[in-house]
Amino acid sequence: MILAAGEGSRLKQIRNGTPKPALKLLGLSLAERTITSFSAAGIHRFLVVLGHEAGQVRAHYEQIAIRRHCDIDFVIAEDWKLGNGASALAAAAKLDSVPFLLTMSDHLLTPSLIERILQARPEQGEISLAVDRDKTEVFDVEDVTKVATSDGRIVSIGKNLEVWDAADTGVFFCTDALFSALRRAHEQAKHSLTDGVRDLAEAGKVNAVDVTGEDWIDVDTPEAFGEARRRLLASLTKGREDGYISLRLNRPLSTRLSAHLAATRITPNQITVISFLISLTGAGLLAVGMFATGVVGGLLVQAASVIDGCDGEVARLKHLSSPRGAWLDTVLDRYADMAVALAVTYAYASVHPGPLPWIIGFLAAFGFILSSYVTKEFGIRTGEPYPNDVLNRLKRRDLRIFIICLGALVARPFEALAIAGALTHLCVIGVLIRGWKRSAILER
Amino acid sequence: MILAAGEGSRLKQIRNGTPKPALKLLGLSLAERTITSFSAAGIHRFLVVLGHEAGQVRAHYEQIAIRRHCDIDFVIAEDWKLGNGASALAAAAKLDSVPFLLTMSDHLLTPSLIERILQARPEQGEISLAVDRDKTEVFDVEDVTKVATSDGRIVSIGKNLEVWDAADTGVFFCTDALFSALRRAHEQAKHSLTDGVRDLAEAGKVNAVDVTGEDWIDVDTPEAFGEARRRLLASLTKGREDGYISLRLNRPLSTRLSAHLAATRITPNQITVISFLISLTGAGLLAVGMFATGVVGGLLVQAASVIDGCDGEVARLKHLSSPRGAWLDTVLDRYADMAVALAVTYAYASVHPGPLPWIIGFLAAFGFILSSYVTKEFGIRTGEPYPNDVLNRLKRRDLRIFIICLGALVARPFEALAIAGALTHLCVIGVLIRGWKRSAILER
Repeated sequence: MILAAGEGSRLKQIRNGTPKPALKLLGLSLAERTITSFSAAGIHRFLVVLGHEAGQVRAHYEQIAIRRHCDIDFVIAEDWKLGNGASALAAAAKLDSVPFLLTMSDHLLTPSLIERILQARPEQGEISLAVDRDKTEVFDVEDVTKVATSDGRIVSIGKNLEVWDAADTGVFFCTDALFSALRRAHEQAKHSLTDGVRDLAEAGKVNAVDVTGEDWIDVDTPEAFGEARRRLLASLTKGREDGYISLRLNRPLSTRLSAHLAATRITPNQITVISFLISLTGAGLLAVGMFATGVVGGLLVQAASVIDGCDGEVARLKHLSSPRGAWLDTVLDRYADMAVALAVTYAYASVHPGPLPWIIGFLAAFGFILSSYVTKEFGIRTGEPYPNDVLNRLKRRDLRIFIICLGALVARPFEALAIAGALTHLCVIGVLIRGWKRSAILER
Repeated sequence: MILAAGEGSRLKQIRNGTPKPALKLLGLSLAERTITSFSAAGIHRFLVVLGHEAGQVRAHYEQIAIRRHCDIDFVIAEDWKLGNGASALAAAAKLDSVPFLLTMSDHLLTPSLIERILQARPEQGEISLAVDRDKTEVFDVEDVTKVATSDGRIVSIGKNLEVWDAADTGVFFCTDALFSALRRAHEQAKHSLTDGVRDLAEAGKVNAVDVTGEDWIDVDTPEAFGEARRRLLASLTKGREDGYISLRLNRPLSTRLSAHLAATRITPNQITVISFLISLTGAGLLAVGMFATGVVGGLLVQAASVIDGCDGEVARLKHLSSPRGAWLDTVLDRYADMAVALAVTYAYASVHPGPLPWIIGFLAAFGFILSSYVTKEFGIRTGEPYPNDVLNRLKRRDLRIFIICLGALVARPFEALAIAGALTHLCVIGVLIRGWKRSAILER
C-alpha cells in the first residue's frame, strides 16, 4: 500500500503545480522511484491511496504501471485531509487480513531495505516497522519521526520524543491489526498513522526491524529534495569498478552531465551511439594528421570517453539498465578503440614511411582488445570476475584514451598510442600470469 | 573394491610381461583408467585385491595413488587361482557391512555409469548390478556375462544363458550379502563372482540397474583392447564444438597424432607451447615474402593448427585436463593469430607501398580477436555459451588458418588473409545481432 493522498504543501515552491508523486527527480518521478524500488525487491502489486488531486495522481500511476509492468489498484480516501492515518484506513476494505507492506509515495528507499523488512513478517495482531539506528545519517533529524525501542519492540513513537534510539523510515509490514488501531485512534479524533502505530506500540505489538545502513529519505521539503538528488548522483560512483582517469576526471564530469541528460527523453542506448559517433569523428580528425585537427580529434575522443559513462549512469538513474544496452556499449567501445588506433597510426605512417609505424600501431590495437579479452576469459575460466586491481586499472579504456588525447594536445598522438599500447601489453602479461596462478589453485 | 588378482592370460601376447592392470592403453594403464573414472564420479578410496604378480601390481597402483591423489589399500587373495569370487572373498574382512562398489581392474567405464549405479544403493541383504540392455552395442556378445531380468531384479546370470535381456557390465553396488553368497558358493566348490551373484539372484536379492547408453568394455582379449582404443579415440571428437575444417581435416589428423603422443611422456602444456612455436616459425617464414618460404610457412601454420588440437586430446586421453592448460591454450592462440596476420601483411606491404595493405591487415587481425571476444562476451551477458552455429563455425580459428595456408600455397597469402578477415567480420556482425536479440529477450 502506497499513501499518495497528501498535498505535499512544503514542496509547493518546486512543484510548479505538478502533484507531489509526479514530481520528477533526475528524470524519474518520486512515485516511479518508489515503484521501481519495490519491483526490484520482488513486489509487483500495489494499492495506491489517493486524495489530493486524485485524478492526476491516478493517471500518473497508471502510466507507471504500463512502463514498469506492474499491477496498480487504487482507492480514494475521502477524508485524506484529516491525516495519513485516515488515508490508510480508507484502504482497509481492499486489504483485509493479508500481511502487506505500507509506505509513502514520497519516501525513496533502496530495494535491499525492502528485502530486509520482508524478512520480518509480523505475527497476527502485530506490525513491523523498519527503523534506522544511525542518527548521523538521518536527514533532517528535527523533522523525522523518532522511535524508542526495547528488546526489538517499539515502545514509543513521535516527532518530539526526548529519548529515542532510531528513526522511523516509513516502511511497514502490517497485518490488519493496523486498521483496528487506526480505528481506535480515529474514535479519539487522532488521524495520523503515527497515532495508530503508537496505540499498537503501547500494547507491545510493533516490531522494530533494523535497516541501519540502507539509504532512505523522506522527500517532503526542498532541502530533502536537494539531498535526495545529491545522494542519487553520489550513488552513481559508489562501488563502481573505475580506472584512475575515470574516477578523477570522467566520472565527476559524466555524473554532472547525466544529471542533465536524465531530465531529457534521450535513452541510454542513444547516448551509447552518440558517444560512439563522437569517437569516430575524433578518429577521423586524428587521421588527418595536422596539429589542429589532432587537438580537436583528441579532445573529441576524450569527450566521447566521458560521455561513454553517461549511458550507464542515466540507465541507473532512471532504472533503465538493460542487457541490451550493456551489450551495445561493450561492443561499440571495441570498435571505437580500433578506429582511434587505426587513425593515429595512419596519420603517422603517412609521413613516416616503412613498416615500423604500422607494426607498432598493429600491436597497440591488438593489445587494447586483448586486454578486454583476457579479463573476460579469466572470468569464464576461474568462475570469478577479474578484480579491479592495479593491472586492470592501468589497462582500462579510460586511461589509454586519455593518454592518446594528451599526446594529441602535444602533437605526439602516435607516440602516445605506442605508450598506451606498451602499457596495455604489460598489464595483459600480468593478467595472464595471474590467470595461470589462479588456474593452478583451481587444479588442486 | 577393485579385483586385480587374475592373470589376464588371454592378453599375454600384447602384454610383453607387464601385469595386466599396468598394461597401457593410449598412454594410461587399464588400472589408472579405472581409478580416474571412479575419481571423476566422486570415489577416492579404493581396496585393490591382488593375486597374480601381486608385488608388481601393487607398486603400479601405489604410483597411481600418488598421481591421482586417492587412497588405495590392498589385500592379497591367496587362492586367487580358484576364481574371482575367491579373490573378492579375501577382501571381506576389510570391507564389513559398508555398502561398497565392486569392479574389475580391466573394465573401462564412464564416470556417468558409476554415477548411475551410485543412485541405486542396495538394501540390507541385497546387491545391485549395472546392466546394459543394448545388445548391439555390447562388444564380444559371445564372451559377455548375460543376465535375465524381471521387474528390475536379476533372475539368472551366466555366459551361456539361452534367454537373456541385458549384459553384466561388471560394476556392482554391494552389501556384505555378497560375501555370504560367495561363502555358500565356495562350500559347493564354486569360486567365480558369477556363482555368488547367481546364489543371490535366485533369492531375488540382485537389483538390475539400467545403465544402457553408457560406454563400458571388458578388456580381456586383444580384440577388446583394440576396440577400447578405437572407442577412446572416437570419444575425442564426440560432442566437440568443432568448425568445418577441424571436423574434416584437423581432428582426424590430430587424433591419430594424439594416439602416438599419448604414449610418450610429453605433456599437454608442452604440446600447446610447441604448437605455438611452430605457428611463430610459420609466421616468420610468411613474413619473408617469397613463394617457397610462404608455402612452408603456410603449411607450418596449418600444421600448428592441427597440433593445437592434440593438447586437449592428449589431456582427455590421459585424464590430465586442467584449467591452466585451457588458459594457456586460449591465450597463445590469440598471439599466434596476431603473428600470422602481422607477418602476411608485412610481406605484402613490403612490395605494395601505401597504407591500404596495412589497413586491411589491421582490420583482419582486429576481426580475429574480436570474433573470440564477442562470443565470450555473449556468454557472460546472457549466461549461456554462444552456440556452435554456422556463424560460429565460419569464424573459428581452424577455418581462417586453413584459408591463409591455402592462400600461401597459391602465392596469395595476403588476399587469403583479407578474405578470412572479411568473413570473420561478417560473422562477428551476425553474433552481435544475435547477442542484441538475445539480450532483448532477457529484458522481458
